[in-house]
Amino acid sequence: MEFKPLSGRLSPRFAAVKTFFRLPHVPIEENYDVGIFGIPSDLGVSYRPGARFAPTQVREFSSLGRGFHWSRGVNIFEKLKAADIGDCPVTPLSIDQTMKQIEDYVSQLLKLKKKFLAVGGDHSNTLPILRALKKHYGQPLAFIHFDAHLDTYPAAWGCEYHHGAFARHAVEEGLVDPTQMLQIGLRGPLAAPEDLDFAKKHKITAITVDDVRAGHLNDFVKKLPVFKSTPTYISYDIDCLDPAYAPGTGTPVPGGLTTYETQKILQNLKIPNLVGADLVEICPAYDPSNITALAGVDFMFEALSLMALN
Amino acid sequence: MEFKPLSGRLSPRFAAVKTFFRLPHVPIEENYDVGIFGIPSDLGVSYRPGARFAPTQVREFSSLGRGFHWSRGVNIFEKLKAADIGDCPVTPLSIDQTMKQIEDYVSQLLKLKKKFLAVGGDHSNTLPILRALKKHYGQPLAFIHFDAHLDTYPAAWGCEYHHGAFARHAVEEGLVDPTQMLQIGLRGPLAAPEDLDFAKKHKITAITVDDVRAGHLNDFVKKLPVFKSTPTYISYDIDCLDPAYAPGTGTPVPGGLTTYETQKILQNLKIPNLVGADLVEICPAYDPSNITALAGVDFMFEALSLMALN
Amino acid sequence: MEFKPLSGRLSPRFAAVKTFFRLPHVPIEENYDVGIFGIPSDLGVSYRPGARFAPTQVREFSSLGRGFHWSRGVNIFEKLKAADIGDCPVTPLSIDQTMKQIEDYVSQLLKLKKKFLAVGGDHSNTLPILRALKKHYGQPLAFIHFDAHLDTYPAAWGCEYHHGAFARHAVEEGLVDPTQMLQIGLRGPLAAPEDLDFAKKHKITAITVDDVRAGHLNDFVKKLPVFKSTPTYISYDIDCLDPAYAPGTGTPVPGGLTTYETQKILQNLKIPNLVGADLVEICPAYDPSNITALAGVDFMFEALSLMALN
Amino acid sequence: MEFKPLSGRLSPRFAAVKTFFRLPHVPIEENYDVGIFGIPSDLGVSYRPGARFAPTQVREFSSLGRGFHWSRGVNIFEKLKAADIGDCPVTPLSIDQTMKQIEDYVSQLLKLKKKFLAVGGDHSNTLPILRALKKHYGQPLAFIHFDAHLDTYPAAWGCEYHHGAFARHAVEEGLVDPTQMLQIGLRGPLAAPEDLDFAKKHKITAITVDDVRAGHLNDFVKKLPVFKSTPTYISYDIDCLDPAYAPGTGTPVPGGLTTYETQKILQNLKIPNLVGADLVEICPAYDPSNITALAGVDFMFEALSLMALN
Amino acid sequence: MEFKPLSGRLSPRFAAVKTFFRLPHVPIEENYDVGIFGIPSDLGVSYRPGARFAPTQVREFSSLGRGFHWSRGVNIFEKLKAADIGDCPVTPLSIDQTMKQIEDYVSQLLKLKKKFLAVGGDHSNTLPILRALKKHYGQPLAFIHFDAHLDTYPAAWGCEYHHGAFARHAVEEGLVDPTQMLQIGLRGPLAAPEDLDFAKKHKITAITVDDVRAGHLNDFVKKLPVFKSTPTYISYDIDCLDPAYAPGTGTPVPGGLTTYETQKILQNLKIPNLVGADLVEICPAYDPSNITALAGVDFMFEALSLMALN
Amino acid sequence: MEFKPLSGRLSPRFAAVKTFFRLPHVPIEENYDVGIFGIPSDLGVSYRPGARFAPTQVREFSSLGRGFHWSRGVNIFEKLKAADIGDCPVTPLSIDQTMKQIEDYVSQLLKLKKKFLAVGGDHSNTLPILRALKKHYGQPLAFIHFDAHLDTYPAAWGCEYHHGAFARHAVEEGLVDPTQMLQIGLRGPLAAPEDLDFAKKHKITAITVDDVRAGHLNDFVKKLPVFKSTPTYISYDIDCLDPAYAPGTGTPVPGGLTTYETQKILQNLKIPNLVGADLVEICPAYDPSNITALAGVDFMFEALSLMALN
Repeated sequence: MEFKPLSGRLSPRFAAVKTFFRLPHVPIEENYDVGIFGIPSDLGVSYRPGARFAPTQVREFSSLGRGFHWSRGVNIFEKLKAADIGDCPVTPLSIDQTMKQIEDYVSQLLKLKKKFLAVGGDHSNTLPILRALKKHYGQPLAFIHFDAHLDTYPAAWGCEYHHGAFARHAVEEGLVDPTQMLQIGLRGPLAAPEDLDFAKKHKITAITVDDVRAGHLNDFVKKLPVFKSTPTYISYDIDCLDPAYAPGTGTPVPGGLTTYETQKILQNLKIPNLVGADLVEICPAYDPSNITALAGVDFMFEALSLMALN
Repeated sequence: MEFKPLSGRLSPRFAAVKTFFRLPHVPIEENYDVGIFGIPSDLGVSYRPGARFAPTQVREFSSLGRGFHWSRGVNIFEKLKAADIGDCPVTPLSIDQTMKQIEDYVSQLLKLKKKFLAVGGDHSNTLPILRALKKHYGQPLAFIHFDAHLDTYPAAWGCEYHHGAFARHAVEEGLVDPTQMLQIGLRGPLAAPEDLDFAKKHKITAITVDDVRAGHLNDFVKKLPVFKSTPTYISYDIDCLDPAYAPGTGTPVPGGLTTYETQKILQNLKIPNLVGADLVEICPAYDPSNITALAGVDFMFEALSLMALN
Repeated sequence: MEFKPLSGRLSPRFAAVKTFFRLPHVPIEENYDVGIFGIPSDLGVSYRPGARFAPTQVREFSSLGRGFHWSRGVNIFEKLKAADIGDCPVTPLSIDQTMKQIEDYVSQLLKLKKKFLAVGGDHSNTLPILRALKKHYGQPLAFIHFDAHLDTYPAAWGCEYHHGAFARHAVEEGLVDPTQMLQIGLRGPLAAPEDLDFAKKHKITAITVDDVRAGHLNDFVKKLPVFKSTPTYISYDIDCLDPAYAPGTGTPVPGGLTTYETQKILQNLKIPNLVGADLVEICPAYDPSNITALAGVDFMFEALSLMALN
Repeated sequence: MEFKPLSGRLSPRFAAVKTFFRLPHVPIEENYDVGIFGIPSDLGVSYRPGARFAPTQVREFSSLGRGFHWSRGVNIFEKLKAADIGDCPVTPLSIDQTMKQIEDYVSQLLKLKKKFLAVGGDHSNTLPILRALKKHYGQPLAFIHFDAHLDTYPAAWGCEYHHGAFARHAVEEGLVDPTQMLQIGLRGPLAAPEDLDFAKKHKITAITVDDVRAGHLNDFVKKLPVFKSTPTYISYDIDCLDPAYAPGTGTPVPGGLTTYETQKILQNLKIPNLVGADLVEICPAYDPSNITALAGVDFMFEALSLMALN
Repeated sequence: MEFKPLSGRLSPRFAAVKTFFRLPHVPIEENYDVGIFGIPSDLGVSYRPGARFAPTQVREFSSLGRGFHWSRGVNIFEKLKAADIGDCPVTPLSIDQTMKQIEDYVSQLLKLKKKFLAVGGDHSNTLPILRALKKHYGQPLAFIHFDAHLDTYPAAWGCEYHHGAFARHAVEEGLVDPTQMLQIGLRGPLAAPEDLDFAKKHKITAITVDDVRAGHLNDFVKKLPVFKSTPTYISYDIDCLDPAYAPGTGTPVPGGLTTYETQKILQNLKIPNLVGADLVEICPAYDPSNITALAGVDFMFEALSLMALN
Repeated sequence: MEFKPLSGRLSPRFAAVKTFFRLPHVPIEENYDVGIFGIPSDLGVSYRPGARFAPTQVREFSSLGRGFHWSRGVNIFEKLKAADIGDCPVTPLSIDQTMKQIEDYVSQLLKLKKKFLAVGGDHSNTLPILRALKKHYGQPLAFIHFDAHLDTYPAAWGCEYHHGAFARHAVEEGLVDPTQMLQIGLRGPLAAPEDLDFAKKHKITAITVDDVRAGHLNDFVKKLPVFKSTPTYISYDIDCLDPAYAPGTGTPVPGGLTTYETQKILQNLKIPNLVGADLVEICPAYDPSNITALAGVDFMFEALSLMALN
């Protein structure tokens, strides 16, 4: 089997059943390197639901994707055998059951020695992914977290698990190594000064939009931390972007990054061992122009090119 | 305190903090007759979430409401002391907890001898309301159920409670009297012929769109069952309407009723003891023109006028 | 000069500068029979403004118009020399000045012996038109008024002139003959029972949606009043239609007419002396699908065919 | 292989790669009975393009489809082995090449003894389908054509083939038998009285909306012509529906059918030998609420149930 | 009474009657420090009306607001007792009457020794606010004016008062001190070179987008003028932002500021005596994603934090 | 005849028949300097069609345009006699015929010694324009090409002419001088490394977004090439902008320029002999807020001011 996108010259990009990047849709056990899958679950949100529809929309707009990374000079789909492996099982009425299903699904993938790219869904989906990764690799992960929010908040309405608490659990459960953890895109009003205590206490590297823009972007990216061979994971919450660039999300925050800035950051990160990544919090119903999904596809392209370089 | 809508002549309808029908926003214990409240919860849906935003949108468009019912000749807000009593507490991450909160809230209202009009939220919210009503009145309710769907479906993904199963639970738990239960607006493809068994077995009166349109509407409404003094409840799922009339809903079904048809049905129902009603499944994100919310306000007006006549 | 629509076979309907029905855009003094003009003013509204953009949108969608009336068998633009004569002058900051400008503009048209079709704008624009007509013809007009609302309301916020009061002024000023006045499409909640007093007192024929639907439509239209040679005017408020058919309007009311019903009513009206007509209350910003403007163009086609038959 | 929709109880309807009715996506040679495919081509339009995106959107919303036809009592996917066979090859820059590709593709299907349901695309796509059918069956087809427009127009801008001329070519090339040809939903302004000559000359049965609504719908459907064993084809142009029901189309015409009316017509047609059908002119970009695609899925359900009964 | 926002942990942010920042809705005489109110009037616009709906939309999206200002380290609602005091009375049919009502309302507030934050409405609303302020403080105000436009234009269509002339009147009437007046965000085509004469003549400090971007933003903000103890007012016209950041406005101008830039400017302004502020020209109907209202809420947060620091 | 925009003070900007910049609509032979015309054709697209509606939308939003260029200090419409000369003839069903029509139309204009500004349509329309220019001026043009894409791609689906190949044909046919050709705004994934070969081989100056942002924008613009007296043409593909600034386009690419950046580039280009320009790829259906058209009008203003300076 050839794991190549259906060519736009063979079949126009608006045609054909929609899969991620027009890649073959195959069973999980197939012989690919990187499995791309959806997690159509938004049960952890505190404001707007609807990210369950993101995998469908991202599949559609990833049709516009191509494979050659201009500035890196790498042709992703020559280097990587990538495939659409469908959607992870979820239970629309139970976040607990869904989190278990995600962990099992990712564990299965890891057992098959796959790398992966997941398309949520809300940010609560990242926690069970990290649990599976930790279990598989036997060590806390290096973790790069694009977000407007800290996501280190306490339980809400008596519920431990929600999209604003995943990062806290990831640290507290030892899934990620906070000294190798980077949060980028942070900004905006907080509930209280205590919000920052968690990051400080755990020595997480927290980069605000102000930090990114303190000087010229090209200078900023040179100072990004260098990652070692630790298995590394990237979680990209689309709300790291300004609402102008990503209106279709659940809890948008003005004053955010531009798509260009996250491109440059991703292109300058040295990640020798990227084992997985996710794209979360795209909420299609709030973006009639679909530019949010397009920005998400752009992240996927960068993440895949990072994997292609590994 | 006067329980009258803020006059459009005093303050334009686009002005002021938005409450249902521009009524005073008061605590639950106040001295009104009918309490209107929101249930901003959509945790029971199987397809599109978002009905949690319906109370806010319905409050906004109920500003256009007026009080005099032309064909009935009744001035609602002269007859009834109605008030906006805010939103019922809910837990965005737990349907179980939310169902408990709804039951408690409605029980509290009933203890205060109130009638009420609830604005969901999805249809799973109706079950705890019926539980509270049954407990309070000590007898199964007469029940009028506008819907495209039967909502008598079995558990889904291992979960008993969802928006397609509430009517089954209501019957099975003895909350409603199936021989005094009317389902109106039914239509569309079913999953299997067994879908109809429940209604048949329990002798529920099931009226399809075909039934409504078998002859002239004026003839149909004359044959509607007459309700007795049994405490009666109406649940109005906005998807009883055709998607042309109510595009903003979670699981729209073509071939539905017109707003006019449900007006005539409601105006011809004889319900001597209407104790409560709900409006559910308005999903604002899918209706940029907001006509769905307007149609919902129209139902609220009919329901209030039924209460005003009691 | 030939007063024919630019042919869709010569130039595609999406091409060319947009004029009403792709007719020539000419100065008011030109040698046409019927002048079509815009009144881009919405200063009389009580809820949503925006009808000032209706002339532009109606011009665009009237590109889809054709000239042969199937059931009447008349080719409008063979019978009538019609033209787009631009927009009536208005003053965006003063309803008083605007009303004066409209009256002057229509008076000028009438002096030139023109018939006309005006595209508002809100319904307050109709009053100065009727003033000009009364002055010109020296007698009260027969008047057909499609609307969800009575528009016979008193002053609001101390202001006599607004879109809900024009019909009252028209009667009180003797501009129209109430015994030859027809209101069609009325429905919905009223503010109070007194709302109906005006129509009763002046013996206006008020037809509700219930009246239209009491039997079969074909029977209803046979009973429509016959108009005599009195100069007759039609004012078509797009909110006579149900919000499903005309979501883009300022104060939509559920339970309204269908476009088909108003077509049949218009096709069965006998109006030997139609001297003018207007289309009002289209508010483009609330209808992303533009079906409201299309329904409006449909009315314009019927009105022109009535003039073509005169 | 089992040709059953992916169960909504197994995987929620918003999940998984989108195929028509959640059916398996298989190669054209597979062992199914009815192949459902897209024709993502809109090169024949005279106004709004964009129907090339309809197959993708219809796939998404057909997720809401179920299999049991209530009034017919038939479970489609029990009776028929149906499959999504992907999209027919098209050439976005050449209508001529595309028409050839469609004809070849359908011929291939017919050689494989398949029935089919095609999702356009614009109405020019129907002509090459009919050519392939005629060639395969060796006789003109009985033809049922739902549409607001006659589609018997002459060449436009010097081009023979466009979406308003396909029916003329179909008759002139002898692909369909005009005496067994039914046009339903016709209405609206025509360019000139000559527009009707073609239908008259060829004795096509042309049914306008007025005809459908001359009496009660139940009486109308009883008088529908009965089709014999001639191979029969249905082409359903979504603009047969009123713009309120189908705003997302290229050339909407007010005063159209309701979805319910086309349901009843389809349910009362006796078609012993339905060999194929198509759904055309859905233009997603003009319908943010997606009710047009839903109405289209409804037609597909009726067409499949007709095939299931054969 | 406690003037704290309803906690998102107590009641989810999508729940409850919508007030500014979920603050208590209280009468004007209550014991708060800063009153937030709406001015639902858009009678001064020259292009798109609709800003009358901004207070409702801003109330809804201010639910997403929180209270702790990260870079300033201040918790607004700990420092300030803020409240939603409803909407200022307006007259939808008369700009003159409305201007009088605004002036009276603000005068009343000032007599009560309140600071305030007003949410328009169009920019003509700012003039009567400044009149009340001048009268109350007995001296011209220092004035910071964010805008794409100069708003120093002459009368239009014979009307002195409109949204493009308020700044001229404010200077000419001596309401503001032009030597302590800052205009930021100016850009775009002008009608004529004379447009600039007013600012030059009165020595207003006019900062264009080019000025803001002449070097690095951090350098620019250091050179901002320092305000003294003069009572100071900020008027924030949302069209100071680029249309990408604020599409929902009446007269958008490309090439504008980013939300981030206005955040930094506001965070670097030294204003020891900020007595009031307004947010104007948000026009919800033109922004289906609601990012304009979100950007507006962001300004409100900065303005409140400036007041909290005073 | 006076070639001045209809004054906004005479007639509000939302009023009147819409022409480009409210200029007189005149026949091609009239006595103007610069003719602005539409090319309503999108037959060369590979993804989303719909740019055929751009001339209509751009006409509408150019109503907001004014004539005085602030930083250049030039009043365009004082210097230039500009006019709306309508739309170029096109054939909606044939790209070949349309390309011929465009070439003929532009040749006619050039014979009349006109400069021009064309509003597409898709980018395939630029090729016949360049053919006409080359023929008229007898030499290859200097060419400035704003775009996200190279547009030097080979034939697609066997068709030579499409919107991604026009620049290749322009070079290969000798219409433009590649050594005086500038491409700006390039970015994003490519199909393969060979995509870049064409530009390299022909020594085209290709400027990526990275190049623009390597340092401060003011430094970048100083290094722009200086154009000589060679007749020069600018083609502005709106997708040079980031999707946040121009969502309404056929093939948007994240990471693009801001409107401000293209303004500064245009304002710093020295072009002594600009003979024509076009604006292409605006696709209105995908931008409900219309900010894309506004950004397009902004380019038109810069292009006209360049011509005014010549």
